[in-house]
Amino acid sequence: MIAKLIEKIQEKQAPVVVGLDPMLSYVPQAILERALKEQGETLEAAAEAVWQYNKALIDTIYDLIPAVKPQIAMYEQFGVPGLAVYEKTVSYCQEKGLIVIGDIKRGDIGSTSAAYAAGHLGHVQVGSKKLSGFHEDFATVNPYLGSDGVKPFLDVCREEDKGIFVLVKTSNPSSGEFQDQETGGKPLYELVGKKVAEWGADLKDGEYSEVGAVVGATYPEMGRTLRRIMPHSYILVPGYGAQGGTAEDLKVFFNKDGLGAIVNSSRGIICAYKNKRYEAFGEAAFDYAARQAVLDMIEDIRNALREGTV
Amino acid sequence: MIAKLIEKIQEKQAPVVVGLDPMLSYVPQAILERALKEQGETLEAAAEAVWQYNKALIDTIYDLIPAVKPQIAMYEQFGVPGLAVYEKTVSYCQEKGLIVIGDIKRGDIGSTSAAYAAGHLGHVQVGSKKLSGFHEDFATVNPYLGSDGVKPFLDVCREEDKGIFVLVKTSNPSSGEFQDQETGGKPLYELVGKKVAEWGADLKDGEYSEVGAVVGATYPEMGRTLRRIMPHSYILVPGYGAQGGTAEDLKVFFNKDGLGAIVNSSRGIICAYKNKRYEAFGEAAFDYAARQAVLDMIEDIRNALREGTV
Repeated sequence: MIAKLIEKIQEKQAPVVVGLDPMLSYVPQAILERALKEQGETLEAAAEAVWQYNKALIDTIYDLIPAVKPQIAMYEQFGVPGLAVYEKTVSYCQEKGLIVIGDIKRGDIGSTSAAYAAGHLGHVQVGSKKLSGFHEDFATVNPYLGSDGVKPFLDVCREEDKGIFVLVKTSNPSSGEFQDQETGGKPLYELVGKKVAEWGADLKDGEYSEVGAVVGATYPEMGRTLRRIMPHSYILVPGYGAQGGTAEDLKVFFNKDGLGAIVNSSRGIICAYKNKRYEAFGEAAFDYAARQAVLDMIEDIRNALREGTV
Repeated sequence: MIAKLIEKIQEKQAPVVVGLDPMLSYVPQAILERALKEQGETLEAAAEAVWQYNKALIDTIYDLIPAVKPQIAMYEQFGVPGLAVYEKTVSYCQEKGLIVIGDIKRGDIGSTSAAYAAGHLGHVQVGSKKLSGFHEDFATVNPYLGSDGVKPFLDVCREEDKGIFVLVKTSNPSSGEFQDQETGGKPLYELVGKKVAEWGADLKDGEYSEVGAVVGATYPEMGRTLRRIMPHSYILVPGYGAQGGTAEDLKVFFNKDGLGAIVNSSRGIICAYKNKRYEAFGEAAFDYAARQAVLDMIEDIRNALREGTV
């Protein structure tokens, strides 16, 4: 799957992923009101509003980008109807030719991780049929439980040509609390990074591995080190834009081949119409505001990379 | 919510929680075949089989135990229909007077954790209504992202009288890979344990805090240390039975008041009919096999605790 992602990135000349992380407060009033009118003040109505919002965004930006990253929590908060819209969003994006990175951050003991891996990247056997629940192309994985919690995901990646991004150094302010702890003279995130390289060593598809890593744009110095530790791992970089990471910060996450990283922006894109820079679009043209924000983000990153990676 | 859990534990004299972690291979053939006949080889049929299995188990054991712990991965593997059965299971158990610990192991950056906390323990606002998605009483939380990923759960615990169990030292074989790393002379799990005590310090409801911890029965020596570090945290102890932990191992997890820990068994109970010890029940009486396994587990733990805690 990583080879397919790279192909799409090269085709669009955009190492960019848009985070479909819809808060109800982002959804334009007209869409929300129509859903509430039709379905009452229900979880179904909230989920329907999110779906209409997503669909308009996808229809307007899909041609510019290689991939999307829906954050499952934003759907899960609306219970079962929300998760039905998550699945619908995954399907619709795949129909539009987008690679889908499910931002699920799952991770558990072996037998339980196997169920997550089956539900998100693989299949379950029901009678004579192999059926898939959420069928994302990639998923994010939490490594706190160690190798036996990650291994079932590796097995599914191998069998079904899928990929994962393991949390190594997250973009949030308190990520250092545990991730930066010195362990044998090295911070924990380096140890996790080494494991990512190990886990992915026999899962290469071309130059890169199906096992990537999440490293926040907000920590470029650590990104530089991790880039070296995991030369064959793609790095999914959140934290650009709304969280404070700049295009200049991003250079360290790329390899000399211009590949090796894909940068996420969520709120900065899908909620662009609420940003001063794009407010002229108005709420009704929220999708066109998002399109312009994608174009600007791609331009920003291309400019930074033009000067070469670090 | 921790005070309610303790009340139930005392009422049943059973510091025991049953893990509702249904694999399709555990479901008796007759139940599975009926579901497949009625709904075809679909995710809906698989989910329905799981529901019938759960319902029979709950009906047969609910009077013996204070709480259940459904593992959401086992439902999530069947996609949206599976998660609908997860919610139905949570509701049904609550109707039966059981406390529900959602074993969800979620954890993300602040804004995303807030969505998980709302969806599982709290509410979302839809128009003028406050609606709840999965409404468990407790949830398990992954700490890898640090305090700002845990804080939204604490806020919801405070507002809605709910509780969490934070992963500190998990029961699986490779849990030590990261959790046991020495950080400033102490293993990481101790540092996480200290944070659990801090996070819970102003969330006490009686002698215990709404912020508990997960510590595997398979690591009793570490349990002894963690018991001291987090005196006011309830410890949810997985790993008894099928994973290898014995009743003797459990003593260290309890405080001198005989409280402070609740022991989980999943497969050992719900799949008891496949165990040599209970095979005389036969597959058709899988629920009575489970009942006997619960009675034996309670007896086993009572005997161990009778000799006093350590």
